[in-house]
Amino acid sequence: MKNRKSVIRLSRYKNELDRFKTQGAVRVFSNDLADAVGVTASQVRKDFSLFGISGNRRGGYRTDELIAKLKKILRKDEVQKVIIAGAGNIGTALMQYNGFAQQGIQIFAAFDIDPLKCRQVGSIMVYHMDKLERFVRDNGIHIGILAVPESSAQHVLDVMVSAGITGVMNFAPIRLRAPEQCVINSVNLIPELENVIYFSSAAREHSG
Amino acid sequence: MKNRKSVIRLSRYKNELDRFKTQGAVRVFSNDLADAVGVTASQVRKDFSLFGISGNRRGGYRTDELIAKLKKILRKDEVQKVIIAGAGNIGTALMQYNGFAQQGIQIFAAFDIDPLKCRQVGSIMVYHMDKLERFVRDNGIHIGILAVPESSAQHVLDVMVSAGITGVMNFAPIRLRAPEQCVINSVNLIPELENVIYFSSAAREHSG
Repeated sequence: MKNRKSVIRLSRYKNELDRFKTQGAVRVFSNDLADAVGVTASQVRKDFSLFGISGNRRGGYRTDELIAKLKKILRKDEVQKVIIAGAGNIGTALMQYNGFAQQGIQIFAAFDIDPLKCRQVGSIMVYHMDKLERFVRDNGIHIGILAVPESSAQHVLDVMVSAGITGVMNFAPIRLRAPEQCVINSVNLIPELENVIYFSSAAREHSG
Repeated sequence: MKNRKSVIRLSRYKNELDRFKTQGAVRVFSNDLADAVGVTASQVRKDFSLFGISGNRRGGYRTDELIAKLKKILRKDEVQKVIIAGAGNIGTALMQYNGFAQQGIQIFAAFDIDPLKCRQVGSIMVYHMDKLERFVRDNGIHIGILAVPESSAQHVLDVMVSAGITGVMNFAPIRLRAPEQCVINSVNLIPELENVIYFSSAAREHSG
């Protein structure tokens, strides 16, 4: 099934392939990718075949071709225009993060309710939240990052959706309601931190 | 295997159980948890049995008992002291996030190289980075969040590790070297955003 996890793995394969390419690898094998990402080689082949990518066990995959195919699948063959709602600490951190451009993701503009935050951050303009709906519509943007406080998250999401946003990465720690055709991926860092706590505690108890 | 994913699932079960409890549920079934988290009921039972938690299919689990057991496994029966290295946008967003306290995680202090950032944020003091090693050692802290720029991440990590940190949640977009006994969980938001892009593009193409 083309589920969330298989797509996340494709992103990871793509990142590792970029690295292999930098190192001069003309061909890669499912084993190499499996080791780099931490899955089995059969998982790699299964994921690729799911998305219509074929290789052969003897010759592996041509690095360039594989990168091109993954880019197409992940919509990295075109620039992805993204807006950010909320120019607080998280929104600003994302505006300053330069890893997006490398991945073909362009933060097109940001929006905030606070006039003091409506300024330029690097090359990105922060507009007043009132302008969001019109801007999204006029520029045909479909992807948004929701980085506003919990209390206004649902309202801002509703505005985004009505303007034509169909995919949202959400940082507000609440459950959001959205129409079925809108994909919401909520980022929750607590389980990630709990994971660190669990494994480092287990390791200390083991060694102590 | 008690791997990363099984522990992440335990955190999620725990969150859903808190919600069930708020709603007055005295007992829960693996089906309820499975639906809430988006896995199969057999996965839920498998995870619980892996960590030594038993229930029965007829009566399910007592909500209170199950929460207590998960809290113990996830080290939530004691307050977890955490420091943050880096008081830029990400570090400051984390200092202001009030979800940690609810989960028994206490951000104990933060550190930055910039004297202008050495101030109080909410109830958390930001000290100069020079003080990190001593502070971590004196307070017996084992968990740290690395939110410094890429260029200084490895150096700051080395200082953290030598002071006694054994678990790190890392936001710097680079590969870090650490001794085997130190657990590093690197947060990379790009695959999460690519996921949103993939599924919302697929949905638009399907409907268009």
